[in-house]
Amino acid sequence: MTNSEKAAAVESNLISDKKNILEAVNSPEDLKGLSVGELNQLCSEIRTMLIDTVSKTGGHLASNLGVVELTVALHKSFDSPKDTIIFDVGHQCYTHKILTGRKDVFYRLRQEGGLSGFPRPQESEHDPFITGHASTSISAAYGFARGNALNLSDGYVVAVIGDGALTGGLAYEGLNNAGRSKDKLIVILNDNKMSISRNVGGIARYLATIRSKPGYFKMKQAVEKFVQRIPLIGQRLRNWMIKSKTRIKNVLYHSTFFEDMGFSYLGPVDGHDMNKLLSVLETAKSMKRPTLIHINTIKGKGYTHAEKNPKNYHGIPSFDIETGDYQSGTDNFSYIFGAALCKIATDDDRICAITAAMTEGTGLDMFRSLFKDRFYDVGIAEEHAVTFSCGLARKGLVPVFAVYSSFLQRSYDQILHDAATQGLKLVLGVDRAGIVGEDGETHQGLFDVAFLRTVPGIYIYSPSTYAETELFLKLAIYDAPSVAAVRYPRGAQPHISIPYISKDLPFDVIESGKNSDTAVITYGRTFGSVCDAYVKLTDSGNQVDIIKLNRIWPLRDDLYERLEDYKNIFVFEEVMENGGIGEHIAYTLLNREYKGHFKVTAIKDGFIPQSTVSSALKKHQLDADSIVDIISSELGREE
Amino acid sequence: MTNSEKAAAVESNLISDKKNILEAVNSPEDLKGLSVGELNQLCSEIRTMLIDTVSKTGGHLASNLGVVELTVALHKSFDSPKDTIIFDVGHQCYTHKILTGRKDVFYRLRQEGGLSGFPRPQESEHDPFITGHASTSISAAYGFARGNALNLSDGYVVAVIGDGALTGGLAYEGLNNAGRSKDKLIVILNDNKMSISRNVGGIARYLATIRSKPGYFKMKQAVEKFVQRIPLIGQRLRNWMIKSKTRIKNVLYHSTFFEDMGFSYLGPVDGHDMNKLLSVLETAKSMKRPTLIHINTIKGKGYTHAEKNPKNYHGIPSFDIETGDYQSGTDNFSYIFGAALCKIATDDDRICAITAAMTEGTGLDMFRSLFKDRFYDVGIAEEHAVTFSCGLARKGLVPVFAVYSSFLQRSYDQILHDAATQGLKLVLGVDRAGIVGEDGETHQGLFDVAFLRTVPGIYIYSPSTYAETELFLKLAIYDAPSVAAVRYPRGAQPHISIPYISKDLPFDVIESGKNSDTAVITYGRTFGSVCDAYVKLTDSGNQVDIIKLNRIWPLRDDLYERLEDYKNIFVFEEVMENGGIGEHIAYTLLNREYKGHFKVTAIKDGFIPQSTVSSALKKHQLDADSIVDIISSELGREE
Repeated sequence: MTNSEKAAAVESNLISDKKNILEAVNSPEDLKGLSVGELNQLCSEIRTMLIDTVSKTGGHLASNLGVVELTVALHKSFDSPKDTIIFDVGHQCYTHKILTGRKDVFYRLRQEGGLSGFPRPQESEHDPFITGHASTSISAAYGFARGNALNLSDGYVVAVIGDGALTGGLAYEGLNNAGRSKDKLIVILNDNKMSISRNVGGIARYLATIRSKPGYFKMKQAVEKFVQRIPLIGQRLRNWMIKSKTRIKNVLYHSTFFEDMGFSYLGPVDGHDMNKLLSVLETAKSMKRPTLIHINTIKGKGYTHAEKNPKNYHGIPSFDIETGDYQSGTDNFSYIFGAALCKIATDDDRICAITAAMTEGTGLDMFRSLFKDRFYDVGIAEEHAVTFSCGLARKGLVPVFAVYSSFLQRSYDQILHDAATQGLKLVLGVDRAGIVGEDGETHQGLFDVAFLRTVPGIYIYSPSTYAETELFLKLAIYDAPSVAAVRYPRGAQPHISIPYISKDLPFDVIESGKNSDTAVITYGRTFGSVCDAYVKLTDSGNQVDIIKLNRIWPLRDDLYERLEDYKNIFVFEEVMENGGIGEHIAYTLLNREYKGHFKVTAIKDGFIPQSTVSSALKKHQLDADSIVDIISSELGREE
Repeated sequence: MTNSEKAAAVESNLISDKKNILEAVNSPEDLKGLSVGELNQLCSEIRTMLIDTVSKTGGHLASNLGVVELTVALHKSFDSPKDTIIFDVGHQCYTHKILTGRKDVFYRLRQEGGLSGFPRPQESEHDPFITGHASTSISAAYGFARGNALNLSDGYVVAVIGDGALTGGLAYEGLNNAGRSKDKLIVILNDNKMSISRNVGGIARYLATIRSKPGYFKMKQAVEKFVQRIPLIGQRLRNWMIKSKTRIKNVLYHSTFFEDMGFSYLGPVDGHDMNKLLSVLETAKSMKRPTLIHINTIKGKGYTHAEKNPKNYHGIPSFDIETGDYQSGTDNFSYIFGAALCKIATDDDRICAITAAMTEGTGLDMFRSLFKDRFYDVGIAEEHAVTFSCGLARKGLVPVFAVYSSFLQRSYDQILHDAATQGLKLVLGVDRAGIVGEDGETHQGLFDVAFLRTVPGIYIYSPSTYAETELFLKLAIYDAPSVAAVRYPRGAQPHISIPYISKDLPFDVIESGKNSDTAVITYGRTFGSVCDAYVKLTDSGNQVDIIKLNRIWPLRDDLYERLEDYKNIFVFEEVMENGGIGEHIAYTLLNREYKGHFKVTAIKDGFIPQSTVSSALKKHQLDADSIVDIISSELGREE
């Protein structure tokens, strides 16, 4: 079928049923013959699908609604996978997934065995690069573009990056490097004035100033069109004008930051106007050098509730389409952490709270309202967050940086070099520590224990309950000598099935009462499952003591003295086995010539795809039943 | 003594001996009464001291020669420590150290128990923040400034940052955040057109364009002076003009990137003209909002050899003042690594080399000459280096990123999220792994094993000799399934005192030949000391086997099967004990119910100050004598 035949087919569907364009689109190829009117209708159908699906599966809504026209225009203009399209913080890739052959499984978004909520190369040849963390797209795209050049192969490389991700230093490093090349690299700045909350900082303010000058692109286009029509030399003259415009234009216009970095700049363009999008993409394709297209979009576009409150429809659970309502509530560690920090800050005006564009996600919204002066949203800039905090600490303030475990990986050098080397008091609120569930492999908080415990002098606390979160946050602030981390999981506290009162101790022992020769070491959320297992084991006549670690690092001699009395030691921890706490306990025990039986159950697979938390815990043997099985079979083995 | 009395005293010294100004300067206070002529003479005396001292101690020469006038002007204009001065990548702080009471111990620069080559808060109240890694100063300074504001305390905060460090994303994150404040923060951009080599990227090219417009500041100054003289309202009018200049100026001038970020911009100013420096600093002080001063300096200023070839006088050993000669040579791992990579790249055109502004330091200069198209100096941008490499890898190229161990800490998230999650082939040449000596605590390569071995799927190789560096680099490129690291120490290969031929094996066993029940595990440079110890132990009748690890991660079952036969196992490793290889071996052995004696000797102190490498190794019991002592006393203990 030729493109025009396809278009005719689609058109005839269109007549019989206005709702049918999306049905006929199974690959980017199917867009090629569509008219602008049809593309617009397609966008509307995609919006309906996005709202329908996310209302059931949960996921990222507002950002995806903002890029429907852009994504459709990209797949109309470019030829994926020959051309490469990289979505920065790829949770804005839903329309891309729908258009690239994954429409029929889209209802299984973010579900085990279904579609990832982020681009995933294993899922499709149209997903060139995994992008769960922000600000990577320009660097990666430049790598692709250089690769194409070195391979003498063809193809455009397009990076789609939001103004939020542009606050990250990595994006700047990417611009700085890519700008000097001659590669066919197109950066699309999707400017919706938001990170997750409202975007912050100098660059945000700066974008606001150029956003308000839509004349630039229009005027340039008009002049170029005129020049282009000059016989014989018109096209060459136009190309020369575009390339040399820094020389000409500096006189006429304000030069943009992006041009300063070596990019051609096109825009700003209305990101919901299909005609303008297609036109600016064609112009960019003709440039044959790094070009930045600045488009303005509305986060949440087309769904009134999300347009009004885009930050409330960023990452969300399932919701009611009519009312826009969903369960948010206060039954989660983030909220508890934020509330506890407010309580402490009321009495101690040295406390400052820092977030990297995650005010709501880390439960700091209350702090922001109550202590405006001591609250800092630094943008998607985890490195700056730590170094800036170190400056505050030097001045006697107590910075508390609340951040997702997975994103804290970005601050490793700053924690070591800026905080620990100087013995500064920096408190890390490590949110989403452990399995996170539906966000999948790029968001799992499985490495924080391993990399944080390499930081000299650090204290790491791991609460199992809300009460402990508050208790341990106080210890981190007032007891720890320098860097301290409190790590807590995503979601609600686990049910603790035995009577237990949290104590202000580095570790606590729950004795079975019958001189058990078996110890089960655990901490954090896993304490809940271990308690369930404890009840079951006790019921079936196995006597085990639980050693509950509260401060998981450093561990003290009195712990090891206690451990030496046990013939069997089991460790259950919801982190990577390599670099875990169990590994270090083993090391110390062997140093002390421990001769007993020792077994750790922890995560062996570093990159766990999307699923429910409980399913992942079961799969990795960290649920109560698995714990019972492991302990009974090992104990049985012995006898 | 009042300031004018002091000035008189200095002046009288000056008459009796032209060379005496520096002698009378023991604190910044002593500069206050000096005239511009005297300050210039002081600069000249300081230059002599810098060249004299560094010619003996080694250190950073060219960068320090470039900031003599600036540093003198800063201490004349500001009141340290009430005002805070933070030098980015603080190796440019020598003049600062000389002026702040450390002149008399300056001859012990970079020596054990002497002065650190970087700012060090423990050393002086004038060193507010440790800065061994680049691009941190703006973020830290903004923290200090916010701290002052929150504490309602007074004082300016000044960050001095080079155009090289400005290529780092952290600097951009700092600018983006600080630009929106109203704090008394002054950023001095010391523009010498260099990182260590010539500076690269869009921002470098951009600085070149504004550097060539010295009219801006001069014209503004003239207008301001005129306005200021208007009776009654002159001063207020001038302040208004300065603050609102974005409005006025955009019409007249090209607005700078820094103004776009929210800073006031002053400059460019000749950084060797004391009058202009003092004048622009006073203007900046009057701004009461974030201000960036752009100064042009000459790296190596005042020492002909360094002015001509600044990159050759960046970090250097002791040298001959007359000829400028010093030992560089090819007897070091970096050179060998670079040469080996060239050899491989000759036959394999997929190989690309990436450096973060460390072409010479990492031995890539030969690669740059031979394979220009496949060589990328990305600026001080370790995060981008990895993500960019991942883009190349996706296109079938083989990126090799050569980087100092300590700076690789910056790429932790990119290695995990961009490379490992996708199973991409990224090769890391980890230079300066282990003790580095004179650069001290911020540059020690002690953490790489701990954080790299948390990366799922990584292979880590640790050569002991030049021959192995080439051999293992090939394995990393052709054998490892995804991310691979080859880590090697600073300086020359160790002497291996036993006949030994390197083999292409994950580990090798050097048997004492008499069924020894004692194994000594080691890898990398430490193999040299262990061989020396082996000879001594054998001579004194102790029989030990050496287990030499080549691929230190992952370790295979056959290693553990072998280890189980030994009654005593010793591990010697030149990395942090926490997270080290020894720790993991212990863990696996205990899992396998090993009942023998196990002891690791590794680095316990994460932040080792400057000294010679051999002194640090001795202190941390990694020299041959210590190894002999540890093994014999433990073996003796048993019997």
